[in-house]
This record gives sequence, C-alpha cells and structure tokens, in this order.
Amino acid sequence: MREPVERRLAAILAADVAGYSRLMGADEEGTLARLKAHRRELVDPRIKEHRGRIVKTTGDGMLVEFPSVVDAVRCAVEIQRGMVDRNAEVPEDRCITFRIGVNLGDIIVDGDDIYGDGVNIAARLEALAEPGGICIARVVRDQIRDKLPYPFEDMGEQSVKNIARPVRAYAMSANAVASTQPVAAPLQPGSARRGLISRPAPP
Amino acid sequence: MREPVERRLAAILAADVAGYSRLMGADEEGTLARLKAHRRELVDPRIKEHRGRIVKTTGDGMLVEFPSVVDAVRCAVEIQRGMVDRNAEVPEDRCITFRIGVNLGDIIVDGDDIYGDGVNIAARLEALAEPGGICIARVVRDQIRDKLPYPFEDMGEQSVKNIARPVRAYAMSANAVASTQPVAAPLQPGSARRGLISRPAPP
Repeated sequence: MREPVERRLAAILAADVAGYSRLMGADEEGTLARLKAHRRELVDPRIKEHRGRIVKTTGDGMLVEFPSVVDAVRCAVEIQRGMVDRNAEVPEDRCITFRIGVNLGDIIVDGDDIYGDGVNIAARLEALAEPGGICIARVVRDQIRDKLPYPFEDMGEQSVKNIARPVRAYAMSANAVASTQPVAAPLQPGSARRGLISRPAPP
Repeated sequence: MREPVERRLAAILAADVAGYSRLMGADEEGTLARLKAHRRELVDPRIKEHRGRIVKTTGDGMLVEFPSVVDAVRCAVEIQRGMVDRNAEVPEDRCITFRIGVNLGDIIVDGDDIYGDGVNIAARLEALAEPGGICIARVVRDQIRDKLPYPFEDMGEQSVKNIARPVRAYAMSANAVASTQPVAAPLQPGSARRGLISRPAPP
C-alpha cells in the first residue's frame, strides 16, 4: 500500500551567511545584532512580500518555501541587491553577505516541515553560490528564463553530496546582482531603514 | 512596475477523448452517456483522491491542476489503467479512450482560472500521447523518475505550436499502462462500479 504522504510542488530557497564563524569570532554580539537587523529590515519583509514561508532558521541559515519559483528567484535577487546597499558603508571585515540557493521540487510535507531531495539540493546549491550571489538548479532556470531578466551562467553538472545524480547548476554572480536596479528607494547614509519604510510593515 | 499577478507551481493534466468526433458521429447519446459514466465512476474520483482540481471541461476534454506532480502522474496512470478494465467488454468501435498530457509550470492564477506556457504545453503534450497513453514533459520526468515506477520512453525534442522552444517529451504507451497493476479490486463482468465502491463517494 502507498503511504499517505502529502506532497506539493514548491520552490525552496536556502540561504546562509558566508564566513559566519569568522564574523562571529571577530565580533559575536555585533554580528548577531547586524544579522537580526538585516532580517528584520530586508530579508523577512521581502520573503513576506513574495508569499514565502520561513520553514526553519539555524544560527546563520534559513530555509524558505515559496508557492512560485518565479517569486522565489525575484526574492533572492532582491535580498542580494538590498544587501549591496546595506553593506555600502560597512567596513569589509564586518560585512555580512549571504549565499543563496534556489531549487524546485515535489517535496514531502509533514506539518510545518518539508523533506525530500528537493530540499537537500537547495542547500547544496546554496553552498555552490559565491558570497553575494545566487545559485539555481536547471529546473529553476528553465522555469524562469522567459519570465525574469536576470543573467544566470551555466556552471555545468555539479556532483552534490548524498544526491545520486549530478545537478546542473546556474549562477548569478555578486557583480551581476550589484548591476541590477535597486529594488527600493536608494538608502541614505545613516538611515538604513528608509528604503523599506515605503512598504507596509508586517503586522 | 511589476504587475500584481499571482503565480504558483502546479502540475497540469490535460486529457481528451481520442476520436471523439467519430464516436459522436456514430452514436451521440450513447457516447455522451458512456463518457459521463467514466467521469463519474473513475475519472473524477481519482482526481479527487489525488487532490486535483478540475479547472475546466470542454465537450471531450478537461484541464486539471494538482499541487504535486507525483500525484498528477499517479492519477494519470490510474485513470488510464482503470479505462483498460472498463473497456474490456466494450466493442472496439464504441470504446472511449483518453489521451493524457502532464506538465509542470509556474502558472498564473486568476480566480479559478490558470494561464501560461505551462498550461499550453500540457495541452500540446496531450496531443502527442497515443490513445490510452500518457505524455509528459522532461521537467515532469525529472521530478518523478526516482519516485514512481512507471516506464516513460524518451520521445526526443518536439516542436509544439505557439511555443518558442522545443519541448522534450516522454511517453508511457497504452501497452505499458495495461501492464501495470490494477489500481482497484478487479472488476467483475457486469458490475463495472464494484471496483470503486470501496472508496468514499464524493459528497
């Protein structure tokens, strides 16, 4: 008999902080405070705007599920683009930069948690992304290529841990992210929140 | 400014009756009655069981949306397998056989209706299927290949009307469908409903 598992198609976004241990080693409280501010003022509002659901967070990482893969990639680019502005005045050794991976999968849903290859591969793609950049699976590229203007370069087949088949990956570099249009009003020095204030605050 | 369209990932199943005009020309009322019985006793209950939503029906066709592509392909195989049993005692010239296509797409949702390439391609795949068979897109094959046991053969790249890029299609033949296990209790001659009675009737 078939097990009664619930499945659904979802876009899965995995993100973490590049060099988190180094940042924490240098300034634990300051790093945490800056990370919380980035989440509160940029990351979480963008996720909410694109109808994403934060499935779980770790110290420096998060796993987010979106009903649309177009919206998931838009969200990834907007977060990375927003970080460029937020880091503009920050000394390099204190900059927090994210790696982001996006996959699409027919995942298994168990209450609020999600499982399956689709989730695991998202985390592997994230590890392949350069700091400030985005890495997506071929299935994501195929779905978004005619719908979004972002340049993703073919990285070829990548072997990923614990996944039997190689994954064809596509990358948007940190430079390509920085070349996109700012997604909110340009930030004024010393008022990092201003660019986000025009959007409705989460309830 | 971005338009406020709502998108979601979905599996899209398109089905129609092979040789519908011929069947209707030969026996209009009988064909309609048999088609209604197939829907009531097999097709609609299977769709419901796999959490599909019938988006629209035409005279001989239907468009169905599923949250999971694994469930959509299971449903397609179970419908086609069920039709083998239901047609077993029917003279060949009165047999109703379906073609089914399954695609996966990041579709645009507008109320109860759905739009986009993902929908159009599902209809094109259906037209490529042989009567009693199933045709799926590569993106569907990639998602289900490690999750379902059904044999899909590579049909190569197919040009489809009004779609810029060729679509890589995979087919499960009517013979392959007939070789799968029956999905309900074997039907007894003269009691075509019995195999479905063990399942709860739709409200």
